[in-house]
Amino acid sequence: MQLDSSGLVVLSREECFHLLASAVIGRIVFTDRALPAVQPVNFCLDGESIVIRTAIGSKLAAATRQAVVAFEADEFDPESRTGWSVTTVGHARAVREPAELARLAALPLLAWAPGSRDHYIVVGAERISGRRITEGPASTAGPRWAPQR
Amino acid sequence: MQLDSSGLVVLSREECFHLLASAVIGRIVFTDRALPAVQPVNFCLDGESIVIRTAIGSKLAAATRQAVVAFEADEFDPESRTGWSVTTVGHARAVREPAELARLAALPLLAWAPGSRDHYIVVGAERISGRRITEGPASTAGPRWAPQR
Repeated sequence: MQLDSSGLVVLSREECFHLLASAVIGRIVFTDRALPAVQPVNFCLDGESIVIRTAIGSKLAAATRQAVVAFEADEFDPESRTGWSVTTVGHARAVREPAELARLAALPLLAWAPGSRDHYIVVGAERISGRRITEGPASTAGPRWAPQR
Repeated sequence: MQLDSSGLVVLSREECFHLLASAVIGRIVFTDRALPAVQPVNFCLDGESIVIRTAIGSKLAAATRQAVVAFEADEFDPESRTGWSVTTVGHARAVREPAELARLAALPLLAWAPGSRDHYIVVGAERISGRRITEGPASTAGPRWAPQR
């Protein structure tokens, strides 16, 4: 079990994709007018790529055009203070080829938000990394964290 | 009820802070060597600022030094396809004043990850925005989305 400099468990590439496949919501991270921006999206894995549906004129569609973006998914349990996160970095591209569009339309990926969302963005996972926080002694500095809900 | 161009409910500033106060995990979005980067963190609201604990030498501490960062928290229910997200954008700063450090150390904020994490980063919510997806007719294009877990 490999630990990073923060004491978190480093996940293998295979574990990262396995966890991504179990998630339905992730967050796409991009730059919007020179400022950091982030938007939650539901997504689907297609091989080693992340597939997102959006509206053709959306800010997301414009901001991710040929851009390098990050994509993150995670799952945490506040009670046990355990969980995992996986982050990918790669080029985003709009899908234009009719054959690829038809293939992606058959994926189990329904847009949650209302309206027409037939614009597909594919994000390559050119870099992928993940970490897991396992149960263990937490930092003793400061008062004990207590779940608030 | 105000809707944005995507048909999502626009949350008021008060609703955004109320929802942020109910969350324990968020994601800080920054730039790391010219690439978009994102890291989940547990956090605490201090007035209208976001407080994060990290290790002094961490990548997060280095990358957010005097930087403009985004911070996002959300909660989604895959069954009903509803949820909310709140995003803030503001300057991050490391806390150095002993009086402020002592005050922040009294917040109910315990680092989840192991090791010493007595470096505090405060992110001002200079801009805050939020959206809610309510139940309603989803996009009809493509097959019906089915929860996979």
